[in-house]
Amino acid sequence: MKINGIHYRSVWLADDGYTVEIFDQTQLPFQMQIIQLHTMQDAAIAIKEMWVRGAPLIGAVAAYGMALAMRQESSDEKLQQAYDILVKTRPTAINLKWALERSYRILKNTEHALRVETAYRIADEIADEDVELCRKIGEHGLKIIQSIAETKPVGAAVNILTHCNAGWLATVDWGTALAPIYMAHDAGIKVHVWVDETRPRNQGGLTAFELGSHGVPHTLIADNVGGHLMQHGKVDLCIVGTDRTTARGDVCNKIGTYLKALAAKTNQIPFYVALPSPTLDVTVWDGVKEIPIEQRSGEEQSHVYGITPEGTRSWVNTTPQGTFCENYAFDVTPAEFITGLITERGICAASEEGLRALFPDLYRQQP
Amino acid sequence: MKINGIHYRSVWLADDGYTVEIFDQTQLPFQMQIIQLHTMQDAAIAIKEMWVRGAPLIGAVAAYGMALAMRQESSDEKLQQAYDILVKTRPTAINLKWALERSYRILKNTEHALRVETAYRIADEIADEDVELCRKIGEHGLKIIQSIAETKPVGAAVNILTHCNAGWLATVDWGTALAPIYMAHDAGIKVHVWVDETRPRNQGGLTAFELGSHGVPHTLIADNVGGHLMQHGKVDLCIVGTDRTTARGDVCNKIGTYLKALAAKTNQIPFYVALPSPTLDVTVWDGVKEIPIEQRSGEEQSHVYGITPEGTRSWVNTTPQGTFCENYAFDVTPAEFITGLITERGICAASEEGLRALFPDLYRQQP
Repeated sequence: MKINGIHYRSVWLADDGYTVEIFDQTQLPFQMQIIQLHTMQDAAIAIKEMWVRGAPLIGAVAAYGMALAMRQESSDEKLQQAYDILVKTRPTAINLKWALERSYRILKNTEHALRVETAYRIADEIADEDVELCRKIGEHGLKIIQSIAETKPVGAAVNILTHCNAGWLATVDWGTALAPIYMAHDAGIKVHVWVDETRPRNQGGLTAFELGSHGVPHTLIADNVGGHLMQHGKVDLCIVGTDRTTARGDVCNKIGTYLKALAAKTNQIPFYVALPSPTLDVTVWDGVKEIPIEQRSGEEQSHVYGITPEGTRSWVNTTPQGTFCENYAFDVTPAEFITGLITERGICAASEEGLRALFPDLYRQQP
Repeated sequence: MKINGIHYRSVWLADDGYTVEIFDQTQLPFQMQIIQLHTMQDAAIAIKEMWVRGAPLIGAVAAYGMALAMRQESSDEKLQQAYDILVKTRPTAINLKWALERSYRILKNTEHALRVETAYRIADEIADEDVELCRKIGEHGLKIIQSIAETKPVGAAVNILTHCNAGWLATVDWGTALAPIYMAHDAGIKVHVWVDETRPRNQGGLTAFELGSHGVPHTLIADNVGGHLMQHGKVDLCIVGTDRTTARGDVCNKIGTYLKALAAKTNQIPFYVALPSPTLDVTVWDGVKEIPIEQRSGEEQSHVYGITPEGTRSWVNTTPQGTFCENYAFDVTPAEFITGLITERGICAASEEGLRALFPDLYRQQP
């Protein structure tokens, strides 16, 4: 998507055709800093230090890391070493392992002289496939926004609420939940986005950065506000992302998603989840009962990061000394509160029937 | 309530019997600083600068301000001047005007020699009446906690979720929503409080300060977390305060209250509102349609206050430069989502019938 009119992806090759470039996302949303990755080790640091984040982007950067490794030395030892180092950078990211295995498997059977070229081609493919997946989610979701726009008075914006950041910074381009919004905006549909702050990690700042950079009108609000807005007809549509979706359509996403889904249901507002099929996990049925919810450090709750009046960046502790905080990272929204799932193959009901009809291949794999 | 074992009210007289003492609540929850008010002007500054906050406390401090004025000079002119100055300190606080009118009316008809003594007596009465009101809310609410405690396994705490700060710092003692919790704790019932952070102004910090100072176990959480906790049986009861309650029992309270009420209803968890009758407004029926919601500065959303790693206090801007924020201060929870109202006269259903049975006098006043 665009930053000040210039199109970017979240990972790309420099003009030399070899060097990998990314944004240091730890500096966002306060500063836009491009980092060059020259070696496999650079790529490993970028993933480990969370300069890149979001499963699809991590997978792509890892694949480019394999290419950088082959450029350093195209031996079997280097190939193995690169896999071993990169796979350990973020042990729980499923796309990371998947991308590395794909790259490793092909390169292992490629003659040494062609390994550099092949490795870059694989990384390009992985990045392009993610862009295409998000683009398709965007196209399907666009139809929902279009049909709502047709019901609005002339000149009135379609008001869309989103939670957390499921934008292009977490993928390679477009994003998932934000893809339909970018497409609608680019198609000339008037949209306005309510951006949930998304405590405790304030990923709403990333969403505001993305939307602002691309020129999409938006307003940042406390996570507490969405219910009030829905009661008063100020939200036409909710679209959120998902970290994991179960066989029956329960959605595990950033903590607080569930409360917005409840408010949407109560106020009869459509609540959609943008679901790239790699996050569909048909081995799980009841999300509330079966999905363990990560608990992170309480300091992420008590300490807030930002820019001081002097222009420096600092953490501040917002709680009284000695306050104990708990920090649940995700929650599960049961399928019954979800209007539909926007996948790369189309929109379906949040149900086994709905998902199975679009993804018979994934359900068939199940033992 | 207690701070480190010593009992405090939020306003009291110094040992000299004249000087009024308060906490500078703008320093809370980070620092406990007692301020002495020697003159009516001091009291006016304390209210205007929000060293004291919460309608009942503002009313009491204003009444003590009248007493300080009479000590300075017991003339009719001074009485009028004190009223005029104090009534303008926070124009929308209903208790402020009520307390000042009560004091003015009596003092006007009191001979000069007795005005100082009478003014202090009125202020003491206003403070004591508020304490008594909160104490009664506490006693009635205690029964709810007791009956839940009886259903819990031996040694298990009753988990209570609260939003914002409806504690003793906003009243004179006990608080409203927190009064039943303090009483349960003092009665030896094991309680644990989930304290909502309450963005954007983070009043959860005040609640954590209060509970911590009194020794009540508690955990501070993001406003996003409550739904997840309720889904997983980690909340036995919700108790919140109210800024205004309508004739049919709709409750206007801090933004985000509504989302918690929806989650409580969905998960069949009792959701109670502590309602001191002065906040019952029988002139309003449909809270969502009729109550205008205050919109405050977007900077309260974008900027967060806390203590830096260097130990100094600072604001930090948490949003990308130029981000537009909106800040709705309250929302309305329709009566249907409220299990019951805990008033000083007992517990009733959130309905006209329920309220009318307890407060026939208030309903009769209606034109």
